[in-house]
Amino acid sequence: MFYSNMNIILKHIEAITGKNFVFTDEETRRQYGHDETEDYNFPPTVVVKPGTTEEVSAIMKLANQYNIPVVPIGGRTGLSGGALSIHGGIGLSMERFTKIEIDERNLQAIVEPAVVTQVFQEVVLEKGLFYPPDPSSRGSCTIGGNVAENAGGARAVKYGVTKDYVLNLEVVLPTGEVIWAGANTLKNATGYNLTQLMVGSEGTLGIITKIVMKLLPKNNHNVLMLVPFFKAEQACEAVAAIFRAGIVPSALEFMERDAIDWTLRYIDGVSMPIGDAVQAHLLIEVDGNYLDVLFSEAEKITEVLESFDIDEILFADTEDQKNALWKMRRAVGEAVKSNSVYKEEDTVVPRYELPALLKGIKEIGNKYGFSSVCYGHAGDGNLHVNIVKGNMTDEQWQTEVPKGIREIFELTVSLKGTLSGEHGIGFVQKNFMDIAFSNQHLQLMKNIKHLFDPNNILNPGKIFPDNL
Amino acid sequence: MFYSNMNIILKHIEAITGKNFVFTDEETRRQYGHDETEDYNFPPTVVVKPGTTEEVSAIMKLANQYNIPVVPIGGRTGLSGGALSIHGGIGLSMERFTKIEIDERNLQAIVEPAVVTQVFQEVVLEKGLFYPPDPSSRGSCTIGGNVAENAGGARAVKYGVTKDYVLNLEVVLPTGEVIWAGANTLKNATGYNLTQLMVGSEGTLGIITKIVMKLLPKNNHNVLMLVPFFKAEQACEAVAAIFRAGIVPSALEFMERDAIDWTLRYIDGVSMPIGDAVQAHLLIEVDGNYLDVLFSEAEKITEVLESFDIDEILFADTEDQKNALWKMRRAVGEAVKSNSVYKEEDTVVPRYELPALLKGIKEIGNKYGFSSVCYGHAGDGNLHVNIVKGNMTDEQWQTEVPKGIREIFELTVSLKGTLSGEHGIGFVQKNFMDIAFSNQHLQLMKNIKHLFDPNNILNPGKIFPDNL
Repeated sequence: MFYSNMNIILKHIEAITGKNFVFTDEETRRQYGHDETEDYNFPPTVVVKPGTTEEVSAIMKLANQYNIPVVPIGGRTGLSGGALSIHGGIGLSMERFTKIEIDERNLQAIVEPAVVTQVFQEVVLEKGLFYPPDPSSRGSCTIGGNVAENAGGARAVKYGVTKDYVLNLEVVLPTGEVIWAGANTLKNATGYNLTQLMVGSEGTLGIITKIVMKLLPKNNHNVLMLVPFFKAEQACEAVAAIFRAGIVPSALEFMERDAIDWTLRYIDGVSMPIGDAVQAHLLIEVDGNYLDVLFSEAEKITEVLESFDIDEILFADTEDQKNALWKMRRAVGEAVKSNSVYKEEDTVVPRYELPALLKGIKEIGNKYGFSSVCYGHAGDGNLHVNIVKGNMTDEQWQTEVPKGIREIFELTVSLKGTLSGEHGIGFVQKNFMDIAFSNQHLQLMKNIKHLFDPNNILNPGKIFPDNL
Repeated sequence: MFYSNMNIILKHIEAITGKNFVFTDEETRRQYGHDETEDYNFPPTVVVKPGTTEEVSAIMKLANQYNIPVVPIGGRTGLSGGALSIHGGIGLSMERFTKIEIDERNLQAIVEPAVVTQVFQEVVLEKGLFYPPDPSSRGSCTIGGNVAENAGGARAVKYGVTKDYVLNLEVVLPTGEVIWAGANTLKNATGYNLTQLMVGSEGTLGIITKIVMKLLPKNNHNVLMLVPFFKAEQACEAVAAIFRAGIVPSALEFMERDAIDWTLRYIDGVSMPIGDAVQAHLLIEVDGNYLDVLFSEAEKITEVLESFDIDEILFADTEDQKNALWKMRRAVGEAVKSNSVYKEEDTVVPRYELPALLKGIKEIGNKYGFSSVCYGHAGDGNLHVNIVKGNMTDEQWQTEVPKGIREIFELTVSLKGTLSGEHGIGFVQKNFMDIAFSNQHLQLMKNIKHLFDPNNILNPGKIFPDNL
């Protein structure tokens, strides 16, 4: 992408951040031109690393003046292409925003967007506090990206997603204005909830520079079990049954057979025997402060599971075993992707509909000639579908798969679900948005975008279908 | 309020709903012209009781055509005047929307807006399910009103407020279009979160016709204790200390001495001895499925409380005692109001700031010559401030009290809190909004309003300051 007056713009940017934080070399641009979405690379014209809210504000004013796209960039672990500079312009890496300020008295923290999620979790844990949202990429994704995509993860089933922890946000609006969207309070009924409008808006409505997060007191114990099912659909059925028995597990993860097999080959140091006839696993965790209660809950869960066709349950006895199981679960996404060219979908339905969704996905795959590996956060009905190219021809991959994906999303919506549970729409799913929303509804969202960003310079080309 | 072509409009409305659901008599209009906000009465020109979403849509189209204000009306228990027809027009009572459809398989319910909150709680409880939001007015407020104001109540401290249970909404937009704002899923990262934009928008962005609510498995046990403090500020300090000890109570309510005294005189059948030197009480509840755990948590709480200057703790031993304590707590608002002309504020701050807030409120009262009775949901920093007229002159009441209220809100905001935790801004607090938000920020909210409601016919004159 070429901007005729780029030299003038670069001079202005350098005046704002200093030369050391402005990069136009090919290598840096390509580095910031990709995230974890398939193999896309859309380099920004310039990579800028601002250090303060004021600098971000000045850059937005400049970008408005010259009509230059700006794409906020976090940990680049996104799976929907939200951080791709598809129209070039300024790639605004927030990586210098790494402060954490813990307010133990109020069980809150003010955290800057580039703090890595796992770092944040560990820092608050040292104070006896707990930040539950736990995306599989927590070792490299950032809190800012989590807010932008409303990330979830394994603990969402009991503790909610990122949006449930965001109390307030400092935001640089596309026009350069800076606002605090709400207040640092647990309750708020004061005007429109711009905080929650900003969460999950994928960097299209504003640039988040500070986040006030709610924290919980930490839990001391958990019990983790891996349950092999001889029928994958029964594993899905068991998910709803556990809740109906009155248990709210802290994690309830589903993995198809292939997901585990491929992952065990992909990662080092984890092995386990899996019966030939096993089709799927549930990884189930309960947590709390009273170990005897957790054992009692685990017992209730096993009672529920006995009505299904399962192999022997593996209880993780030690921290090492627990870590190994979680390492395996977290690596599934990467393992599946390392295996083949792929497309990843992030379907979500009411949890009881999971068996219908899984069955439908396989039927659609058969119809269009692709196979898929499914896994994900079954406790909240969130099923990741990895469509693998395997030995499909390039032509089939280009023509048949998109038809199949459209049918999968149509099925999802017909089950009262939607396109994305936690990855966002970004670049790769935007042309499926008509399945979930009417044209008028999309237009309303787009008008909100226009209200915040009249020149459409902030992360343009995301969320909305090309033909809207 | 007079509309020149009202007769034509009435004919049209009658054609939509049938004559039996259209009322222009003075008595009905006055009945629907007030809620529980001070002694205001703003009757609509006509009261209409639609029966279906389609009828609501047709009425909105008509109202747009003739530029008539429409005010959605629920249980009329609001405390900020959100349901007052301050510009006359159509008072749209949603009272015929009373269906409840429980989806036990997914732990969800589709509930219509006129369902009384307590009715909803009881109906789901019969199925072993739990809807936590629990406003003090739960016996007469409606779910639709709860969503409109983002109502909270005593259990919010552990379980969150109304917004945390709303998964999806069927909404009639001011233009008459009908949308489902989101999906029936626990997670959603698909476009802008219009569901959460709608929650708490006080009936200014759309008319809610169906609500998809998340439910929890019910709890079997709770332990309730009433703790008398010799110093009111210590009661506030104890609130944060309990959380810092790792306990998340299911309720943590604060009542000043006057609040309890006045309430015990106001309600029948509840009495208790209160030491002369007692200044305030905390009502503390823990809940769960394991009684021994609750006793252990109660013990930890009493250990925390021992470091404060308290009188003897009263444990509620029986269901009757628990009901009596809750009856008392729920009646505080009404009791205080029955005692004097009053103004009620709904301040909210980070919970550790409660002692500073309480101290400041009393100082501001002294400065402007008013007394106040404070009580509320201290666990989430939400302090209701009832300013009582007592023996102030009318002139003092008119001139001094608003200055004091402004200072109270300025204090609240300086403590990182805001104007309203759960009552909304509505009619009575709108001219204080400049304290919490910059002019640009308010203009952004107002532009969102304009986007949804270009003719400004839906609940006009609410939320935004008159001079914006």
